[in-house]
Amino acid sequence: MLEAAEIGRTQSRKTYESRLPALRVDLLNAQFDLREASFPVILLVAGDDWIGCNELINVLHEWMDARFLQTNAFGRPSEEERERPRFWRYWRTLPGRGEVGLFVSAWPENAIADRLRKKEGKAGFERRLDHISRFEETLVAEGALLLKFWLHLPKKELQKRLARARKKPNEHWRVGAVDGSIFENWDRFMPLAERLLSRTSTGAAPWHVVESTDERYRNLTVAETILRALRERLATADEREAPQVTVSATPEDVARRSSPSDGVLARADLASRVSGEVYERTLARGQRRLRKLSERARRKGVSSVLVFEGWDAAGKGGTIRRLTGALDAIDYRTIPITAPCPEEQAHHYLWRFWRHLPRAGRMLIFDRSWYGRVLVERVEGFASRDAWQRAYAEIRDFEEQIVEHGIPLAKFWLHIDPETQLERFRARESTPYKKYKITDDDYRNRDRRDDYVVAVEEMIARTGTEAAPWVVVPANDKKSARLQVLDVVCQTLEKAL
Amino acid sequence: MLEAAEIGRTQSRKTYESRLPALRVDLLNAQFDLREASFPVILLVAGDDWIGCNELINVLHEWMDARFLQTNAFGRPSEEERERPRFWRYWRTLPGRGEVGLFVSAWPENAIADRLRKKEGKAGFERRLDHISRFEETLVAEGALLLKFWLHLPKKELQKRLARARKKPNEHWRVGAVDGSIFENWDRFMPLAERLLSRTSTGAAPWHVVESTDERYRNLTVAETILRALRERLATADEREAPQVTVSATPEDVARRSSPSDGVLARADLASRVSGEVYERTLARGQRRLRKLSERARRKGVSSVLVFEGWDAAGKGGTIRRLTGALDAIDYRTIPITAPCPEEQAHHYLWRFWRHLPRAGRMLIFDRSWYGRVLVERVEGFASRDAWQRAYAEIRDFEEQIVEHGIPLAKFWLHIDPETQLERFRARESTPYKKYKITDDDYRNRDRRDDYVVAVEEMIARTGTEAAPWVVVPANDKKSARLQVLDVVCQTLEKAL
Repeated sequence: MLEAAEIGRTQSRKTYESRLPALRVDLLNAQFDLREASFPVILLVAGDDWIGCNELINVLHEWMDARFLQTNAFGRPSEEERERPRFWRYWRTLPGRGEVGLFVSAWPENAIADRLRKKEGKAGFERRLDHISRFEETLVAEGALLLKFWLHLPKKELQKRLARARKKPNEHWRVGAVDGSIFENWDRFMPLAERLLSRTSTGAAPWHVVESTDERYRNLTVAETILRALRERLATADEREAPQVTVSATPEDVARRSSPSDGVLARADLASRVSGEVYERTLARGQRRLRKLSERARRKGVSSVLVFEGWDAAGKGGTIRRLTGALDAIDYRTIPITAPCPEEQAHHYLWRFWRHLPRAGRMLIFDRSWYGRVLVERVEGFASRDAWQRAYAEIRDFEEQIVEHGIPLAKFWLHIDPETQLERFRARESTPYKKYKITDDDYRNRDRRDDYVVAVEEMIARTGTEAAPWVVVPANDKKSARLQVLDVVCQTLEKAL
Repeated sequence: MLEAAEIGRTQSRKTYESRLPALRVDLLNAQFDLREASFPVILLVAGDDWIGCNELINVLHEWMDARFLQTNAFGRPSEEERERPRFWRYWRTLPGRGEVGLFVSAWPENAIADRLRKKEGKAGFERRLDHISRFEETLVAEGALLLKFWLHLPKKELQKRLARARKKPNEHWRVGAVDGSIFENWDRFMPLAERLLSRTSTGAAPWHVVESTDERYRNLTVAETILRALRERLATADEREAPQVTVSATPEDVARRSSPSDGVLARADLASRVSGEVYERTLARGQRRLRKLSERARRKGVSSVLVFEGWDAAGKGGTIRRLTGALDAIDYRTIPITAPCPEEQAHHYLWRFWRHLPRAGRMLIFDRSWYGRVLVERVEGFASRDAWQRAYAEIRDFEEQIVEHGIPLAKFWLHIDPETQLERFRARESTPYKKYKITDDDYRNRDRRDDYVVAVEEMIARTGTEAAPWVVVPANDKKSARLQVLDVVCQTLEKAL
């Protein structure tokens, strides 16, 4: 793949200078139009030509409007980055819609470098490539324009460059340790680069391999590729953004819906009850146990993630407070998921969850979560059919990265029957300070319970994995629900500690 | 101060339960109104009653709408936090307008803890209190509602609590190591707490000391104080937000304006020129020098901050690119300051600069900066007279914290005369890809040059400190300007390394 690119392409100074003014105007205009568009642009610059990559970044800053171009480079991960799954550092720097993010020394080089330094085994490297592909695919699927450039310098050119630098170090001071190291490790580096390029060159996110011997050719090729792709995308953006109406019932849906009585929800034993006295005693014991575990987790730097989903008025808030009542404020954070703020809306739907992932030793509690995509967004048609169907795999991948990083993850569905729900709605309405918790939406959701049952059943079936299983909690009796959750949380921590 | 609060206040269960429903509704309503208001609420919970602080946080989460309440707790600083000035961790978690941020184990406790552990000397502790006051003052001055609660438990109560826990550890499992440590260190802890309370209790941000022996009294007192302050502020918010028109010329302004020929700008030698040959040679040498310095800075973890201000078309962008051309993309970041995005607008005007502060070993380059407040915002009347006058001290404090942290800071004013500026505007208009850089605003700004000269002179006079001096760079000749900047940047790094 790389040798095939070594065809010695050059661009004469004359052609270069004649094409440049128009190209720069066009690039600026396209970037200007992008500001109004609803997709982000991710430019990934990688390669074996270290100097070329850095020069190219400067050129792009000169040719594009630097005010709306953010460069992200990734060296040794910081402590905060090491405390999170590997891709956290990339997620948190992703550009929002209308923005351009320039990524250099990013996920491709980081994967190769870790393999070269034997931080990553053969199988680990393959898994890494897999994560890269899925990461890039979900970005593209959610609308990002992702352009990947690999700058390749033939070995003999690199050799010449190093020789020149040895002879006249004062003239060729840009040549440095990285170039020498690539040359020396050429035979190990290249096969890894080739493997990475072939494994992560997908239809959605192909690599553009650019020979960088001649900088004029390199600059023009990259800039023209960006311009072409950006224009094409801007021209078709309107079609893509057309709201994709969800067909509210497909034959499979109907088939599924006809048998909600077989599902895991129907099998939940809603009759379980616990007495006040047993509750108080067991709760205190559970909280004590949780506190000790949280202290150990803090010392050992083990974080955890808890996800609470469930019917409206199922008692998520109260259950969560029974957990946090045992903890120090410093050891946990509750993230109530509401409608996304503008900054969140401008990003991939998983971005706002990625950014919250906790530091080592902390517990992160989501009161509703990324499952909104396959629940409310599916049922209400806020997400297209494509989008929510894709979400199962995206969510599995997200959770897999959390668990692989050593962060235990527990997911709860708090289950109540429609009658109990109605009672609680009524009770809320007659309690002044709970009134705000009940809106017309809640009644509308209640009317669509059958649709939600289908969505919940499918969610549990398709995202309940061994590493991140769902726990359906019968919650008609709040007390027994709280005790069960407390118990599962403690077990989850015990297993991880 | 603290003993005076030990008056054994309690609240009967009956009164408590009778007042609670109305209080909770009122709190929710006030919080709801806040969502539409244009100020943030910062609730600082501190104290010698560790358990009380944590309980109070849970209570506030229950009583207020937890979806719009973010708790921030601060333990041992992370590596990323240690790489920045001390207050960076607080700045980056500040709530935006309409939001409530709950801070616990925050700046007061951190200051006392560092002093107790002798991480901070006596003088250092005093400086810290000074920073705290100024931090709180600038938040309040910019519109934040800051409420500070110190929960105080009399020593004999703490002793009882510890005794109970020793007797029945299973019932009183919340009592832990922190409580014991406060008791043992009481005689060292209390004077520090008293000192902190008296030094940082200002008119703008007074402390509310609340005895927390009786939790009902504690909960009610805190919640009612929050409610009262929030309501009061909501009621007067409209007046505060009335645009404060800047009187465009006060007598002092006129006096100052009459003598711009005496200023530092007038003294800049705009005639300096450098030949193309000398330029090329000196530039290459300077870039080589900068590269070596940046490599050393990376190894030694020394960051730096460069600020570029100057007339429109003075050549900031080109000068910056001559610096970055010598660097690896990973070693620097350029932040072009444009109009703030909605998230930035929702925060203190310094927030967006604080959040960018670089990791160890990186160079951060601001293309325009926080000086916008005392330049364009002053001249155009976007900031009230109060606001921009206050800004000089706020900026000095901000820069002082950067420099104190060991981050060298260099500030450049690129100076050109009006004729050169006009020539460059014209040239830009006739260069297709530079046209976007020139707007009617530029001509308007040019017409107000005299006003800007007054603002620039005052800015240089009032924010040019020994630690962070201004360098006025004659820039009629772009080449000599670039060489001078390159030289100053290298000198700045050399001094710091």
